[in-house]
Amino acid sequence: MYTTVSMFKTEQEFVRWLQALASQKSPRLKLGIGDDAALVAAGRNRDFILTTDLSIEGVHFDRRLHPARAVGHRALARSLSDIAAMGGVPRFALLSIAFTRVATREWVEEFFQGLFRLARRFQVEVIGGDTAVVRRTGMIDVMVVGEVPRGKALRRSGARPGDQIFVSGRLGRSALGLEILKSRARSKNLESRPSGEASGVAAALKAHLYPEPRVELGNFLQRSRLASALMDISDGLSTDLARLCEASGVGAEIQAQQVPGPGKLKPAKSLKLALDGGEDYELLFTVPSRKASQLPEKFQGIPLHCIGRIKRSRDLVLVRRDGSSTPLAAAGYDHFSK
Amino acid sequence: MYTTVSMFKTEQEFVRWLQALASQKSPRLKLGIGDDAALVAAGRNRDFILTTDLSIEGVHFDRRLHPARAVGHRALARSLSDIAAMGGVPRFALLSIAFTRVATREWVEEFFQGLFRLARRFQVEVIGGDTAVVRRTGMIDVMVVGEVPRGKALRRSGARPGDQIFVSGRLGRSALGLEILKSRARSKNLESRPSGEASGVAAALKAHLYPEPRVELGNFLQRSRLASALMDISDGLSTDLARLCEASGVGAEIQAQQVPGPGKLKPAKSLKLALDGGEDYELLFTVPSRKASQLPEKFQGIPLHCIGRIKRSRDLVLVRRDGSSTPLAAAGYDHFSK
Repeated sequence: MYTTVSMFKTEQEFVRWLQALASQKSPRLKLGIGDDAALVAAGRNRDFILTTDLSIEGVHFDRRLHPARAVGHRALARSLSDIAAMGGVPRFALLSIAFTRVATREWVEEFFQGLFRLARRFQVEVIGGDTAVVRRTGMIDVMVVGEVPRGKALRRSGARPGDQIFVSGRLGRSALGLEILKSRARSKNLESRPSGEASGVAAALKAHLYPEPRVELGNFLQRSRLASALMDISDGLSTDLARLCEASGVGAEIQAQQVPGPGKLKPAKSLKLALDGGEDYELLFTVPSRKASQLPEKFQGIPLHCIGRIKRSRDLVLVRRDGSSTPLAAAGYDHFSK
Repeated sequence: MYTTVSMFKTEQEFVRWLQALASQKSPRLKLGIGDDAALVAAGRNRDFILTTDLSIEGVHFDRRLHPARAVGHRALARSLSDIAAMGGVPRFALLSIAFTRVATREWVEEFFQGLFRLARRFQVEVIGGDTAVVRRTGMIDVMVVGEVPRGKALRRSGARPGDQIFVSGRLGRSALGLEILKSRARSKNLESRPSGEASGVAAALKAHLYPEPRVELGNFLQRSRLASALMDISDGLSTDLARLCEASGVGAEIQAQQVPGPGKLKPAKSLKLALDGGEDYELLFTVPSRKASQLPEKFQGIPLHCIGRIKRSRDLVLVRRDGSSTPLAAAGYDHFSK
């Protein structure tokens, strides 16, 4: 018996197989399988952005590490980030939830509190869904409908040689937060919890448990017409930048020392987390050189860092502090190989 | 520890709790949590119908009983039926799929063949989704976007006293098909398979494995303006009729001998399957008396049976062949109590 995992080595390989099978052709469909979200014409002035994201127990969350409120928040944040990644505004959500039989009423209530608090903050209405009760693995699928003025959605395919590459916020914080949660769970088992919180720990935990989808920033980039390409960083910069470059038919050169890491750590560790840590839900975008000066240094308090530039040759290169350069391998999260 | 199951006794109870929490209020939202699907304004002339349906291993399908092709077909058919249930036309689908590590390439391919064959037949385009690999329980969530002319969607809340109640096709066939599959699996284990197929067996198996969403009929009812209320029968007539009556604030009287059962069985068994067997995906609709004569006896070969009428008092009554009447209890499928 071959397993799916061995038959489709990467998610990308599966997506390509599915694209071929789906053979999309509707004139109303503007963007289908393979981007952050799908794009469908909805009336004369608008396009709808449709996206859906799974949150599965044991894959995307762990009851022992993640409070119910964080599970709810993160489940919705993932889909909102996909809408942000196209410059849209989220409007409606559908929730499919498979509860496990052991879920307590308290857990379910806190899960929804976390989800609805985030929904309210972005004025997203939960309009329907489906539910079931399962034996073991809890699973949530959140579908979000967003809007964007017709033809104005930003895509990952618009980067051109010479464009500058930007990221919002700091990268690797979520991965660091997960490491901290895991290490705490281990010390708890040994009955010896670490005392006090080091600098950056609270920020890392918040980034992991309650990530902030960059909806306003994505919308600003769409309205200002500054960005040539946009996507969110959900699986790690090294993996997502490779996807952006492939979609755009270009390569990239990244300056290691300009990549904003998660905080006070040894430089190598910080860079590793920033490049390969997933679930940051920050935005990755490119800006043509002539427009780069118009981009603010911060947007609503979030720093925007230039980390490199797009180049014609289709490889990804990391330039180290000492000027040496190495290939930048996609080492972020792949749903099929891990 | 209270379990979800004990805290929310029925799916209806959970849905009401969620409705209160969601407190929907957008002017663009026309119908939210609780109907077959949600309804959202999309441009000047159109509304979008949004629905999502879970198909979970061990709950909605069983690898030992259901061929992969049928799992794919059924997963999409459930959502298409929700669109039919509002008189709309399905357009786009998003698929979230959690594969188990033991799924073979052959299983995955046949699953998608079943799903895409049905999608093509109704010109539905698969435009995106999400995937993951899980240890044990395979899960599919299919979201479908349908369209209906603005303000024309049919709802379950429009039934009025005196309206005649209709169902399409035959009921209980899918439940009978499932019984046959289970009994075959048992005899297979005992190495003694039954020989030949009795009359009606093939039809029952087809109804269960490859149910036909009544998209054209739903759309006909919408265009012809004959139906006052419409929904699909996914959880059994007794359960779904109760939902229609509750949404409309009415009751119903059903004539037992007019309910079209699954075939050549003892009358009591046939009626039980027809009333309480789920997953038929036939349509249940009401037609004002003055319009009933305009309804054809068959639509595209599918018989349309009048099974009773709507009444003012809010109870559900079953009139037996001998003229005696009993309360009709909702005994179909509830996702929380079974």
